[in-house]
Amino acid sequence: MQQALEKATAFVPGHITGFFSAHPAADPATAGSRGAGLALSDGVQLTVSAGSSLSLNGEILDVDPVDRVLETLDVTAAVEAETPLPLGAGFGVSGALALGTALAANAAAGCGYTENELTEIAHCAEVEAGTGLGDVVAQARGGVPVRLEPGGPTHGRMDGIPATPQLEYVTFGELSTETVLSGETEQLSAAGEAALEKLLAEPTLETFMRGSKTFAREAGLLTEEVRTAIAEVEAAGGQAAMAMLGQTVFAVGGGLSAAGYEPAVCRIDAAGGRLCNTEQLE
Amino acid sequence: MQQALEKATAFVPGHITGFFSAHPAADPATAGSRGAGLALSDGVQLTVSAGSSLSLNGEILDVDPVDRVLETLDVTAAVEAETPLPLGAGFGVSGALALGTALAANAAAGCGYTENELTEIAHCAEVEAGTGLGDVVAQARGGVPVRLEPGGPTHGRMDGIPATPQLEYVTFGELSTETVLSGETEQLSAAGEAALEKLLAEPTLETFMRGSKTFAREAGLLTEEVRTAIAEVEAAGGQAAMAMLGQTVFAVGGGLSAAGYEPAVCRIDAAGGRLCNTEQLE
Repeated sequence: MQQALEKATAFVPGHITGFFSAHPAADPATAGSRGAGLALSDGVQLTVSAGSSLSLNGEILDVDPVDRVLETLDVTAAVEAETPLPLGAGFGVSGALALGTALAANAAAGCGYTENELTEIAHCAEVEAGTGLGDVVAQARGGVPVRLEPGGPTHGRMDGIPATPQLEYVTFGELSTETVLSGETEQLSAAGEAALEKLLAEPTLETFMRGSKTFAREAGLLTEEVRTAIAEVEAAGGQAAMAMLGQTVFAVGGGLSAAGYEPAVCRIDAAGGRLCNTEQLE
Repeated sequence: MQQALEKATAFVPGHITGFFSAHPAADPATAGSRGAGLALSDGVQLTVSAGSSLSLNGEILDVDPVDRVLETLDVTAAVEAETPLPLGAGFGVSGALALGTALAANAAAGCGYTENELTEIAHCAEVEAGTGLGDVVAQARGGVPVRLEPGGPTHGRMDGIPATPQLEYVTFGELSTETVLSGETEQLSAAGEAALEKLLAEPTLETFMRGSKTFAREAGLLTEEVRTAIAEVEAAGGQAAMAMLGQTVFAVGGGLSAAGYEPAVCRIDAAGGRLCNTEQLE
């Protein structure tokens, strides 16, 4: 039986993957992806308190990884989440909900886990639900995260590109992570490995953007609208790529604005997922 | 010969170690400490630009680890740093200067290192200068960092306590890290290992504070003023401990204020060392 539930709040950045290779495994703690992405100042803020439902922007919904996290923690709680990010469009909202729930529920119920343990619980929940492979570890780290080795914190290994660009993005619609990840990922993974090798040889934002654009093309995931937007940003002198996995185009600096779009604007979140409440010893 | 130097700015949190065990080694990348501490919103902000001197709060000075970092990066640069933290009092100012210089000089000169590589360079500079063993990796991570295994990012391993307390601190004077670390550290390290084991069994802020207080006593480092301040905070119902290595007392929440002190007040810095300038691709 759980202890009395306090109220706790957490923030987790959104995460756009630029390119990746899939590394499935029987053990969810070792399964994951290699690749690179951007942790966004636009993210998910959520509060855990007494109750038993999940709401996102005021709407009740079911998110499998959140249920799994609460089950692992053995906590029954209400989760109220707010985000400016769309679901299913490549921003890692399900990963953010899973990690935020882990952080806040641990604090609210006094479960006594470390940050690595909470990240691992959320990572495993995402992998088992089939909703993501690498968002959670990237969201826990923040910055411009590079997944060197797949898996949760116990088995995986992270690095980061030292850069803090302004970011812009536009979304044209969803793309099912489950469908892509459950299909044939061989070609996609080969393209992802090639992009990662180039990035590690020259770890800059420009190499990341170039690798991301090449990846989307080689992985065969570009839709017509996405292809057009990337081309228009380039025609205006900028660099843009596609968020994996969603019909979302992102650009660094003012690339999308310069091409005549009306994008959402945000920054890099350097901190990664974290508790927001001030816990004070009395 | 280095490329033309742009201007780049970095921020690195201060870091208070609560307890530690020393793990010297011939290779500075594997040398380090195990233990736990707090990354502070009070830290070092610095700018790297053309020139060749280091200033801290307007005063020219020599800091061995900074020289070593610039030498490793093969960059000649001026470093202008500002901090509200005192030097030599247990706030990891030399580590912050080393890591901040690595981050900013890498960006300014286009050296092309990843964040792990820059952390490793700063860590090795600190170890070789004898000014610290574990501050740099803790400052790179942010939060309430736990050093599970000693060393830079290649060999070491980090975790964190999920907590975001308000912090207070007062400083009564310096304590030489070089002198303590170059002396007999066996008893100190045994106390540090014991505190870490307890913290990992119950990873909460309260266990961290209790372990830190016990460590300072067992390591034989308490001065009279420090002992008195800790006792007065406890008499007022709070928890306080001593920063390693300095004559500094820190408390969570309003512990020092409640005991009649006029402490500096800050928060946890969740992000860790980072570039501050917005790097935009044109």
